[in-house]
Amino acid sequence: MKIRIGIAGYGNLGRGVECAVGQNPDMELVGIFSRRNPADVKTLTGVPVCHIDEIENYKNAIDVLILCGGSATDLPVQTPALAKFFNVIDSFDTHAKIPEHFAKVDEASKASGNVAIISVGWDPGMFSLNRLYAQAILPEGKDYTFWGKGVSQGHSDAIRRIAGVKNAKQYTIPVPEALAAVRSGENPELSVRQKHTRECFVVAEEGADLAKIEQEIKTMPNYFADYDTTVHFISEEELMRDHSGIPHGGFVIRCGKTGLQGEHKHIIEYSLKLDSNPEFTSSVLVAYARAAYRMKQEGQSGCKTVLDVAPGYLSAKPAEELRSTLL
Amino acid sequence: MKIRIGIAGYGNLGRGVECAVGQNPDMELVGIFSRRNPADVKTLTGVPVCHIDEIENYKNAIDVLILCGGSATDLPVQTPALAKFFNVIDSFDTHAKIPEHFAKVDEASKASGNVAIISVGWDPGMFSLNRLYAQAILPEGKDYTFWGKGVSQGHSDAIRRIAGVKNAKQYTIPVPEALAAVRSGENPELSVRQKHTRECFVVAEEGADLAKIEQEIKTMPNYFADYDTTVHFISEEELMRDHSGIPHGGFVIRCGKTGLQGEHKHIIEYSLKLDSNPEFTSSVLVAYARAAYRMKQEGQSGCKTVLDVAPGYLSAKPAEELRSTLL
Repeated sequence: MKIRIGIAGYGNLGRGVECAVGQNPDMELVGIFSRRNPADVKTLTGVPVCHIDEIENYKNAIDVLILCGGSATDLPVQTPALAKFFNVIDSFDTHAKIPEHFAKVDEASKASGNVAIISVGWDPGMFSLNRLYAQAILPEGKDYTFWGKGVSQGHSDAIRRIAGVKNAKQYTIPVPEALAAVRSGENPELSVRQKHTRECFVVAEEGADLAKIEQEIKTMPNYFADYDTTVHFISEEELMRDHSGIPHGGFVIRCGKTGLQGEHKHIIEYSLKLDSNPEFTSSVLVAYARAAYRMKQEGQSGCKTVLDVAPGYLSAKPAEELRSTLL
Repeated sequence: MKIRIGIAGYGNLGRGVECAVGQNPDMELVGIFSRRNPADVKTLTGVPVCHIDEIENYKNAIDVLILCGGSATDLPVQTPALAKFFNVIDSFDTHAKIPEHFAKVDEASKASGNVAIISVGWDPGMFSLNRLYAQAILPEGKDYTFWGKGVSQGHSDAIRRIAGVKNAKQYTIPVPEALAAVRSGENPELSVRQKHTRECFVVAEEGADLAKIEQEIKTMPNYFADYDTTVHFISEEELMRDHSGIPHGGFVIRCGKTGLQGEHKHIIEYSLKLDSNPEFTSSVLVAYARAAYRMKQEGQSGCKTVLDVAPGYLSAKPAEELRSTLL
């Protein structure tokens, strides 16, 4: 019997999950649940679409529901509400609010006897795991996270809100010299500016004051003021042709020392290079859906994060096969 | 109360564990158990040494025993025998015999109600974990493991057995072009010879036939015949001065595709660069000793591998703190 997956929310992430389920022969996609009128939603694979208000009727038809809404307003409400009926997975990524989100989801999923796994993806997610493993193995050391090269949706949106801007795409880029310094094992102190640069491709409205737009971007607090930022004005056609993808990635690097006097250095590095940020995140969500299903089968309940899930739960292969082929 | 650690076997690995325990404030080292006469064993930190035959008397004084013997003859006997009395960790690394070792240790540790974690280190160990995570996330793809640059003890020993050889050190080196091809996402087919080269530093006895030694090394079946091998003859002084370390490391890289037509590529890479292979392995053993202690506290028993251990168990920090600082 296959693991029956439902998707709540059908944007980039939902479409990514739809594709990822198809790569996992032990899973099947039951349906997509959307706030839109189902008749207006065209899916990639032809899987049925239902209105999100109907979802409770599918309580016995879905083993794990993957929530593909946004962290700002959707997930804080949806994850605790839907954990009352389903095992759920979300990619809640507002780092500062994870403890609060965890508490609400934990209460709901414990009450219903379901398993919920929150903040699944690559950061939070695989990067969090790698920070944990590296810190536990090398307690005397320092770790660094770099993001990019990749598109930051939040920064792109911030540029688009500037008067005179028609469209924009922002790339976050690690500074090569900073990466090299970290990899050398020097454990450097790095400022925000020293770690990343920001590159913006902006389509301006006709007659807009380009110098003023560039100045507004570069001095925008929180988003750009603390970084070295480059602004390129391009045409809408160039933006569509050269910058329509959503690549991302990054690095988690820890350098630590061992030995009686700390005489030996060790560098642990984990990196991702992703053509499609939402599709990779979706693939992580689907692997953790398998884990949630199994943990529930074993009688577990409550809210978990990637830190609580034994790696073996993610694989469709039996433990014996993993031991003989992967160890 | 601290986690009380014992060490069985006092070679490079045992000394590494002795140092690593000192880096973890929630642990204390109770003693070292050796087959040698305790009076003849000088420890790095002054911790007491007892004869291994006495170890059963320490049943209630040790929470986790870390086994630091060899995989060829020590661990196959010691791990099942000592799992009858202790929670144990070992670094059993004969990949082909892991299932058999697991079965024996599982039986012993289930009978005694202890937790045993076997094959802990970096390969098997952290590399195994990374192969698993990457395969689960990107089911349509291919992964590659490269080792080095680092010293292979087994290959160095094989050279030392050749007539006319006084001493030798062998480095395993990943081929840069192979690494580049893998990172490009091409998923190349690579032969043994295409992935790694071998570099040997050999001290010959006076008057030895160097050409014959070089020929014997390069044609040695299993060890060298399938590789491009370079042999350098150097003096004993040069060997001591330039090649006395035990560095190692390597790479686990998986490239996979996502999307409805597999149109997006993703590369996951994990790498280690280690000044001291045994000290890093020891650090991993110590982190998993913490996990074994906790799993036992929760009432678990039986044999586990790194694939069965939730990451959070490795850290000394409480789950709330991990969620708020690492996720």
